[in-house]
Amino acid sequence: MRAAVLTEPQSIRIEERDEPGPDADEVVVDMSEVGICGSDVHYYEHGRIGDFVVEGPLILGHESAGVVSEVGEDVTGLEAGDRVSLEPGYPCRRCEHCRRGEYHLCSDITFMATPPDDGAFVESIAWPADYVFELPDDVSLREGAMAEPVSVGVHACRHAGVSAGDSVLVTGAGPIGLFTADVARAMGATTTIVTDLVDSKRERALERGADMAVNPAEEEVHRAVGQRVDGDGVDVAVEATGSPQALAGAIEAVRPGGTVVAVGLGDEAELPLDVVDLISREVTLKGSFRYSNTYPAAIELLADGAIDVPSVVDFELPLDRVEEGMNRAQDPDAVKGMITFGE
Amino acid sequence: MRAAVLTEPQSIRIEERDEPGPDADEVVVDMSEVGICGSDVHYYEHGRIGDFVVEGPLILGHESAGVVSEVGEDVTGLEAGDRVSLEPGYPCRRCEHCRRGEYHLCSDITFMATPPDDGAFVESIAWPADYVFELPDDVSLREGAMAEPVSVGVHACRHAGVSAGDSVLVTGAGPIGLFTADVARAMGATTTIVTDLVDSKRERALERGADMAVNPAEEEVHRAVGQRVDGDGVDVAVEATGSPQALAGAIEAVRPGGTVVAVGLGDEAELPLDVVDLISREVTLKGSFRYSNTYPAAIELLADGAIDVPSVVDFELPLDRVEEGMNRAQDPDAVKGMITFGE
Amino acid sequence: MRAAVLTEPQSIRIEERDEPGPDADEVVVDMSEVGICGSDVHYYEHGRIGDFVVEGPLILGHESAGVVSEVGEDVTGLEAGDRVSLEPGYPCRRCEHCRRGEYHLCSDITFMATPPDDGAFVESIAWPADYVFELPDDVSLREGAMAEPVSVGVHACRHAGVSAGDSVLVTGAGPIGLFTADVARAMGATTTIVTDLVDSKRERALERGADMAVNPAEEEVHRAVGQRVDGDGVDVAVEATGSPQALAGAIEAVRPGGTVVAVGLGDEAELPLDVVDLISREVTLKGSFRYSNTYPAAIELLADGAIDVPSVVDFELPLDRVEEGMNRAQDPDAVKGMITFGE
Amino acid sequence: MRAAVLTEPQSIRIEERDEPGPDADEVVVDMSEVGICGSDVHYYEHGRIGDFVVEGPLILGHESAGVVSEVGEDVTGLEAGDRVSLEPGYPCRRCEHCRRGEYHLCSDITFMATPPDDGAFVESIAWPADYVFELPDDVSLREGAMAEPVSVGVHACRHAGVSAGDSVLVTGAGPIGLFTADVARAMGATTTIVTDLVDSKRERALERGADMAVNPAEEEVHRAVGQRVDGDGVDVAVEATGSPQALAGAIEAVRPGGTVVAVGLGDEAELPLDVVDLISREVTLKGSFRYSNTYPAAIELLADGAIDVPSVVDFELPLDRVEEGMNRAQDPDAVKGMITFGE
Repeated sequence: MRAAVLTEPQSIRIEERDEPGPDADEVVVDMSEVGICGSDVHYYEHGRIGDFVVEGPLILGHESAGVVSEVGEDVTGLEAGDRVSLEPGYPCRRCEHCRRGEYHLCSDITFMATPPDDGAFVESIAWPADYVFELPDDVSLREGAMAEPVSVGVHACRHAGVSAGDSVLVTGAGPIGLFTADVARAMGATTTIVTDLVDSKRERALERGADMAVNPAEEEVHRAVGQRVDGDGVDVAVEATGSPQALAGAIEAVRPGGTVVAVGLGDEAELPLDVVDLISREVTLKGSFRYSNTYPAAIELLADGAIDVPSVVDFELPLDRVEEGMNRAQDPDAVKGMITFGE
Repeated sequence: MRAAVLTEPQSIRIEERDEPGPDADEVVVDMSEVGICGSDVHYYEHGRIGDFVVEGPLILGHESAGVVSEVGEDVTGLEAGDRVSLEPGYPCRRCEHCRRGEYHLCSDITFMATPPDDGAFVESIAWPADYVFELPDDVSLREGAMAEPVSVGVHACRHAGVSAGDSVLVTGAGPIGLFTADVARAMGATTTIVTDLVDSKRERALERGADMAVNPAEEEVHRAVGQRVDGDGVDVAVEATGSPQALAGAIEAVRPGGTVVAVGLGDEAELPLDVVDLISREVTLKGSFRYSNTYPAAIELLADGAIDVPSVVDFELPLDRVEEGMNRAQDPDAVKGMITFGE
Repeated sequence: MRAAVLTEPQSIRIEERDEPGPDADEVVVDMSEVGICGSDVHYYEHGRIGDFVVEGPLILGHESAGVVSEVGEDVTGLEAGDRVSLEPGYPCRRCEHCRRGEYHLCSDITFMATPPDDGAFVESIAWPADYVFELPDDVSLREGAMAEPVSVGVHACRHAGVSAGDSVLVTGAGPIGLFTADVARAMGATTTIVTDLVDSKRERALERGADMAVNPAEEEVHRAVGQRVDGDGVDVAVEATGSPQALAGAIEAVRPGGTVVAVGLGDEAELPLDVVDLISREVTLKGSFRYSNTYPAAIELLADGAIDVPSVVDFELPLDRVEEGMNRAQDPDAVKGMITFGE
Repeated sequence: MRAAVLTEPQSIRIEERDEPGPDADEVVVDMSEVGICGSDVHYYEHGRIGDFVVEGPLILGHESAGVVSEVGEDVTGLEAGDRVSLEPGYPCRRCEHCRRGEYHLCSDITFMATPPDDGAFVESIAWPADYVFELPDDVSLREGAMAEPVSVGVHACRHAGVSAGDSVLVTGAGPIGLFTADVARAMGATTTIVTDLVDSKRERALERGADMAVNPAEEEVHRAVGQRVDGDGVDVAVEATGSPQALAGAIEAVRPGGTVVAVGLGDEAELPLDVVDLISREVTLKGSFRYSNTYPAAIELLADGAIDVPSVVDFELPLDRVEEGMNRAQDPDAVKGMITFGE
């Protein structure tokens, strides 16, 4: 079978690999749709993200869905032909984090496309059945692949405690930002405000249902927010750009007692945090990392129509054009590109 | 001004009362729309609900909205002409419950239409401004009156911890049940199942977006639920009929670790509870009483279109026909009647 | 090696069994101390508890500690000679409950001394290393065995949300009740009230630090509580007898907004629950089943001296006298008997 | 009556003031014991704390207890002669924060010794009865005054969610740090680690029950913590010095998924926060401001003996020597000075 392999920064080659067979607790999935994520592009460009360094050939891609082709002997509940979404990380199941249900914090997690673990730009993958989720009839394979970035939004919104009647600011209108705003609305947020520097992205946010879209280059976010929201700021802010300035703006924009969730990982990591302000307005700032226990909810939200997938997809390409996809994904107007596996 | 006064069980008379003037912290509101609640009907029929006994003339009605006509000297943020919804209970503001923000548990609460406190079937009311909420332009006065039963649903769903991807059973498709199912969907429930004995009510539940409606006279609720929901039951059930049998069915229908919230107050109060089952499936059963801190969220949900009000209103009558309203509200097919105050 | 085997109700025989060898993820533990639990006695007497029926020879005992004698090849962090406590249930690690960290609700859990799974009245056991916890130097093996009933108390108190300044009622002063009251105090409860019919048990409760002990045969629990606690009742009650009357009394004794946790499993399961009262005082009633993620905390509390073990132990016997232990454990004054494994 | 009045920075004069009379909802309390807080010293030294500027004569002091001398006509539950502790802030009772029970976030709060509101270095104060708490017989007036700094610890530990078995780091061993560590232990923390630059303060921390005391000038806090705590850090850290470096160290010292609560307000407010670390270890950083709903718990903890007050008090002085107290409080070895009102 074929795989798209990152052999060195800015070089992806199509290679032949052996077909995987399933362990007893695994299924083999033939890939149908795999999204291109910003982290894939970052590894492609720079060969590393922070402390994670690509040191050998690596298959990228971790937003994936496909069709089960083979089933391990101990697997129940899945069979060949099932349309499924793959949760890209499976943990050790035994450490304290796993036992507590915070398996995304497991230090022995295997996570697709995070060195040295291979990802999903490949024709078939063997994966533990408990991290493979069957898709209902009304969820397409493309939507199933998007359960991954939607999960990031579900985790962030749960972490923030978004609830009925909340006002929520989301900084950044890339796929994570747009999906997070969708999830916030699905969880009862009645005011959502999205920021982005790029006009077309702010427009997409508004089309999806945001009440306001702000260009942070043109107005101070907390002032813009103040015009929309009664009281002293939004209940919740989710930072999805990775920019410390955006995070500072998000902190300014929440009300006393409000919560800011930081999701966006950027290169420039240091935020000059005003601690006296954090204390005297009693703001909570939470890091939010990946997700756990979100796939069933993400798939249900997709089935429910709470998240529109087609309008975020800008292009689709076959496996042998992954490298082209990496380049097109860097267009500032692009939100999401897909690698598709056809007949 | 005129008031509809319950003088003895099954007798409501229109009487003249003095126009109220506002205390320093109050506003006077001229009523526009007041809903007829099941509790109003119960007081009208029986002169009591449990320990609450009507011992003198009582004005019923507690789901109200109107227009501010006068403003007390210390009031800020409201002015004559404002369209508002009245939260029907205001607490002592000083006891431990009030200080903790659980003011619905305040034992000194003044609550409309709960003896001996008069309610809203009257042309004008003076009410503390902090329990009077301005309506946005896109919320009608009728919708504003419905912020009360919607609040019951918001409180129940918060109490249950409804979140994204949850499956929720609501027993009873009267106004509380229908609105609770709406609120559950607005808070992220992706599967809602509603029960009622009355065909037309089940139909209304389906029209509002329920995934399934069950007639408990025809099938066991937990079996019907089992056909719809993967796993071992729903995440959450809200009981909104007041029937112990319905509550027993709700308990049976939740999954291990699930939560049942009891909202419906009935005459026949005693449930034979299987404690061993409660423990071994680790079910949580919560009483949910009225609400606190829900009006802003309820009004936002109404503004957002999450709750359709016109389709629950079956009839409207002027103040001098309240007694007729009490009788019509007892039609099993009726969901909500309104008293309207016009020229 | 020898094992004490329940062959039919009221008959335990010492039998020879093969020494276990460890699977790759297991350790073999040579038993040192195993407590006799009320459930062991119940199986011994009646051959069943509710739906769990003893259908073949069964080894009882699930409160155990010992010394590691052999270590499977994949095990890290434990070695031969380590003094350890065994968490008696290990789950499937793969179902939705396990992934969420509620592994005590896993339907595929293997749980010692619950038919058909053998327990700890045996000289050696092979057990998955992730459910085996090393004891610090200042925790004896006997205390380590008591991490099991202490865990029941930790789970119940967490479930109840016990916090600083709370008043807590515990009904029943057997081992679960006494340990639960200890844990409640350790979590900040500043008033603890314990009930029991047996004089010596109430005395033990007082000696451990309870502020009041009530004999429910002599006074109504909620009245007794009312003399001690300001306001309208205790913040939290934990029911640890299995008696529906005790549970009814616990519900009466909590304040509006309070929480009752039911832990005690009894034969007579049906509680006539006053639903109107539950709702109008907004009481929460939670089933609490076994525990998850409690062993580290229970062991730390034992190390901290928060729970006195010697004063609950009434007798100790060697393995070949388990049957005698079953009989002595039925003495109403007895709290805890231990099976000890010496030279 | 006499009051100690800050007339300009570094100048306190004893002045005569009129005796207060109670409003209907107030009591008059004759002061017995008032603690000197670091914020009092800061106002005395600099005439301001951040945005709060002393613009006229100001009475300092907000950690107070005394004896009721007069009772307003609407007050129930308190009478002349009652020994009481005064919660120093009373809120508007009407805003959204107050209704939600987060009254410490009320922007209209009246707070002793925060300009322009006078404090407790005065012989008598009239104060709303709902913010005056009777002391049980086993709590001295001096302990009652300490309910204020203990409340800061209760709020911080609740905010952090401290529970049974937790490991807790507290940076700073002044009164807030020491009391917070006490409260953490009372809420079930089984490992407490305290830092301070001053030897005598670290010693006091150890004497009160800390498991380890670290001098951050001599070793890196997270390394020292790592020697004591299994796993990847403490569950919870509370920062009580106001130093950004201490806060940075606290963040480093918590485990993945851990919580840091910032309590200490310092002059130098800006923390360079590593956002990538915050996200990838999913750390939560919470500002914690004053307290609400803590006085009953703080007083119960004092009554329970969970917090030793005599050992933190370094000196006591009469009202006419407040200025001397301000100077002595600046001794680095001093923890707490008291102003006492005798015959």
